[in-house]
Amino acid sequence: MMRTHYCGSLTESQIDQTVTLCGWVHRRRDHGGVIFLDMRDRDGLVQVVIDPDTPEAFALADKSRSEFVLKITGRVRRRYAGTENANMVSGQIEVLGKEIEILATSETPPFPLNDEFVNVGEEIRLKYRFLDMRRPEMLQRMRFRSQVTSKIRTYLDKHGFLDVETPVLTRATPEGARDYLVPSRTQPGSFFALPQSPQLFKQLLMVSGFDRYYQIAKCFRDEDLRADRQPEFTQIDIETSFMSDEDIMNVTEGMAVELFDELMGIKFGPFPRMTYAEAMRRYASDKPDLRIPLELVDVADLLKDVDFKVFAGPANDPKGRVAALRVPKGNELSRGKIDEYTKFVGIYGARGLAYIKVNDTSKINNGVDGKESGLQSPIIKNISDAALQEIITRTGAQNGDLIFFGADKAKVVNDALGALRVRLGHDLNLLTCEWAPLWVVDFPMFEETDDGKWTSVHHPFTMPHGSVEDLKANPGSATSVAYDMVLNGTEIGGGSLRIYNLDMQKAVFEALGIGEEEAQEKFSFLLDALKYGAPPHGGLAFGLDRLVMLMTGATSIRDVIAFPKTKSAECLMTQAPAPVEQKQLRELGIRLREKAAEQPQQS
Amino acid sequence: MMRTHYCGSLTESQIDQTVTLCGWVHRRRDHGGVIFLDMRDRDGLVQVVIDPDTPEAFALADKSRSEFVLKITGRVRRRYAGTENANMVSGQIEVLGKEIEILATSETPPFPLNDEFVNVGEEIRLKYRFLDMRRPEMLQRMRFRSQVTSKIRTYLDKHGFLDVETPVLTRATPEGARDYLVPSRTQPGSFFALPQSPQLFKQLLMVSGFDRYYQIAKCFRDEDLRADRQPEFTQIDIETSFMSDEDIMNVTEGMAVELFDELMGIKFGPFPRMTYAEAMRRYASDKPDLRIPLELVDVADLLKDVDFKVFAGPANDPKGRVAALRVPKGNELSRGKIDEYTKFVGIYGARGLAYIKVNDTSKINNGVDGKESGLQSPIIKNISDAALQEIITRTGAQNGDLIFFGADKAKVVNDALGALRVRLGHDLNLLTCEWAPLWVVDFPMFEETDDGKWTSVHHPFTMPHGSVEDLKANPGSATSVAYDMVLNGTEIGGGSLRIYNLDMQKAVFEALGIGEEEAQEKFSFLLDALKYGAPPHGGLAFGLDRLVMLMTGATSIRDVIAFPKTKSAECLMTQAPAPVEQKQLRELGIRLREKAAEQPQQS
Repeated sequence: MMRTHYCGSLTESQIDQTVTLCGWVHRRRDHGGVIFLDMRDRDGLVQVVIDPDTPEAFALADKSRSEFVLKITGRVRRRYAGTENANMVSGQIEVLGKEIEILATSETPPFPLNDEFVNVGEEIRLKYRFLDMRRPEMLQRMRFRSQVTSKIRTYLDKHGFLDVETPVLTRATPEGARDYLVPSRTQPGSFFALPQSPQLFKQLLMVSGFDRYYQIAKCFRDEDLRADRQPEFTQIDIETSFMSDEDIMNVTEGMAVELFDELMGIKFGPFPRMTYAEAMRRYASDKPDLRIPLELVDVADLLKDVDFKVFAGPANDPKGRVAALRVPKGNELSRGKIDEYTKFVGIYGARGLAYIKVNDTSKINNGVDGKESGLQSPIIKNISDAALQEIITRTGAQNGDLIFFGADKAKVVNDALGALRVRLGHDLNLLTCEWAPLWVVDFPMFEETDDGKWTSVHHPFTMPHGSVEDLKANPGSATSVAYDMVLNGTEIGGGSLRIYNLDMQKAVFEALGIGEEEAQEKFSFLLDALKYGAPPHGGLAFGLDRLVMLMTGATSIRDVIAFPKTKSAECLMTQAPAPVEQKQLRELGIRLREKAAEQPQQS
Repeated sequence: MMRTHYCGSLTESQIDQTVTLCGWVHRRRDHGGVIFLDMRDRDGLVQVVIDPDTPEAFALADKSRSEFVLKITGRVRRRYAGTENANMVSGQIEVLGKEIEILATSETPPFPLNDEFVNVGEEIRLKYRFLDMRRPEMLQRMRFRSQVTSKIRTYLDKHGFLDVETPVLTRATPEGARDYLVPSRTQPGSFFALPQSPQLFKQLLMVSGFDRYYQIAKCFRDEDLRADRQPEFTQIDIETSFMSDEDIMNVTEGMAVELFDELMGIKFGPFPRMTYAEAMRRYASDKPDLRIPLELVDVADLLKDVDFKVFAGPANDPKGRVAALRVPKGNELSRGKIDEYTKFVGIYGARGLAYIKVNDTSKINNGVDGKESGLQSPIIKNISDAALQEIITRTGAQNGDLIFFGADKAKVVNDALGALRVRLGHDLNLLTCEWAPLWVVDFPMFEETDDGKWTSVHHPFTMPHGSVEDLKANPGSATSVAYDMVLNGTEIGGGSLRIYNLDMQKAVFEALGIGEEEAQEKFSFLLDALKYGAPPHGGLAFGLDRLVMLMTGATSIRDVIAFPKTKSAECLMTQAPAPVEQKQLRELGIRLREKAAEQPQQS
């Protein structure tokens, strides 16, 4: 090996040893006739001093600039008293460099990689990703990601899971997002699809008797990208046979517990479990952030008869919701802040944000008839004293609190107040702990689309609670044996037991309006598999990118992916996608449509 | 968990315990009024006996058929003397079944999965892959593959390699095979390519300072498939910085040694190293099977002047080769066998297969002038006694041996005699050992194409021995710092040091006829990377599928891939590739060419 030690690993225990280092010049300073080089490698930094007593080395150090690659041999010595650097592992020592070899020179990088790196735009970072990843922060994240996958594999290996690869060139899968397509050359006119997940393959592995499967698998969705989405993303994909939902939650919860403990020293207790219905009722979210102590209460029953349409309408609508959210000490919120929150909930479709300031709970009345009211709000005059009293009781509001109201279609109220709850939690510094994991279980099986049809909340292979007859009788109220692992308001994993009975699978397809012919065409292999002894099975998938983002405190999944794409699905470094040669298209039996052909093409 | 034990794990230590098993009915027999079920799961088989004393269980056992999924609770007992089965781990015991639950029924499978499985066509196995993989042989292979990747990861983690994912949706890579393309929806007219390998990304990770990288990566090549190729295959991809070729060979050889030792108990000594030149000279192959003791010797110098054009032509051609292959005891080969071998070398372009039978080494002469010759061959009369003597000396032929000759363009001779050597080794049972690994090193940098241009033997980023000036002066004789790991005549891994100097990279592009503009267009990010301090680096990639195939003794890589494709790149199970909807093509800005559109399409 060229080196004897990594720069960042040197400590006092190497004092007086001769070491050879290989790395990059992180910073170079001339000071009092000697040259100081902070040398950087994967493990960190070390200070190298070169003095004129070694003229050859001195001359080479003198020529060296930021990001030159050097091989340096020298002796480790204790730093002079007062020059130690407590921020570096190697801060007690330095290397007196005696021999230097310049392995590679460097032009001045397009942005600085040392402490001078501030406010560098993401675009240039992505174009020069190979430089951006030199920054210790980025390298550390990627290294952490590698440790995460290693720990996960170790855990799953230990628990008898087999790592099995499933195809990337496959048939369109039914997750419902848009597929990336790959034209076939040997069957012109036909296309492979890149998998949105290995869902059906992992179910087939259970039918094969693999019993416990996992794969850290690339998945693909050709969707318009939101902030934390990528066209290709990575899933920790798990499937098991002969295990109950409880068993599956226990074994995967154990994985999360071990991961946080071993890599971050964080000890989780058992994860709370909460039904979807409870999560929506209390937190207006199926991924509640339990670090935030705020909770919703329903008040529709109190407001059915008020002479105020904003409340009375949704209160009398079976699909409506009227809910109250108590904000402790919210009385202090300024008019401007409340206006800001009103705008904020508008993003989620709410047409306003009613509120009551609670000044004095000994005077709860609507102020009508000249009574002095301890409540302050444009809306109270419409509400009876009794209803106001019950609202205060249900929310548990105290003097100085504020109560926000949401009243609309349930979806709007949940989206708006769910988001407001999280925002208030951060704005008002209400977080009660750093990490709050939980399981959300018993999701609805179906949700209604705008045109009155049923669509799967998870996917069509999710097992419902109850019998085939129950499902047929009342699909809208069916719940699934599904479970999401939620951490700090982010869904980090989700799964379910799967249907392993042909009649149930057919009933679900029927509820979804998937006719026999379509089912046969798309899923004949799955239907076949259910005919030949399919075991009870179920599983789960974690989103690795998001998990690592949470664990490292990164603000974007792009910061935990080595070579990510932009929101418009481009790689700025390689400039992919790119035009291709006509010959290639001919071989694939395709041509560009006119508009596409207007783009600059290769010959 | 539903089960207490795996079927295949039960032994005498569970005797008298009550156990619960879950698995498939592998075989069912009625015998003397009781029912015997061989129950199968991932770990193997166990015999379950159900007698009429438990009428409910008996009735359910009676209804059960092959491949039903059952949950059985019963007591483990010793088998009656004389009924033990030494071929099963659980062969000393059986389970007296008391409770049975039928978890799933099964129709009769399209082919038997137990001992009755013989000569089942691969097509039906691939269509019903989920059943085929139930067969213990297949499941065992897939499980072994999982162990291989687990061991490899453990080894590489231990040696400081970071597991980093590189993109699947990327830009065309320069491996030279045909790319799979993915049309971009957000940039109609542009395409992603699926990576033929992560080559450039792993080099960029070295430029980023990752120092040691690995990935078990899917790679893609849209080529017409030969027996042991798949459109998507898996590579153990490795790259390191600041390491010499020796260092890299040592660390990866260590991985292979550990793998074979820990999984198969096979102890390898240090791998021999052989230059490409020597391998071609002695074995006519760059991946010699060293289990076979046969070696070639060159004899062109002896045959330059013979009055026999078949020999004299190639002997005087700088691109020709004339070589002899001694076959010990080959004298016994029948005329018919020799004809068969003559046909065999014809596959490789050889226009004949000259030979000499060595009957008596005390009479080496060409038989001309009435001399009695100890040699027997249609060709000896053209060769001088002295040359014959030297041929016998060089080959070391003994009485009873046979010498085959190849004389043609060097490539034809090498292909033909290289293949013949391997075939003879197997036909004549000459293998000297079970496993013979080695390194082949110092490959030529370039080879000439038919139109007289240079093409890379490895890829354009491979480092040559020598200086930029050496390369420019004589590209044809440049050798690369490249190394292949060969096992039993199969290349299982290959790699090289990479160019990290911009001038050298430009010189190689120039030698390959890649102009500056093309280089800039295709590889600008690599050329950029070489400007900003690229470390010395190099790596290697192993073919995982082939490695597992060798280790498990499978005869096709399809047998070690869970869901492989056929030679025409189809998945018979999911029927991928498949037609797609017009709407999808419109979104991608492409349409089918007329011929392709004639295929049956979806609406």
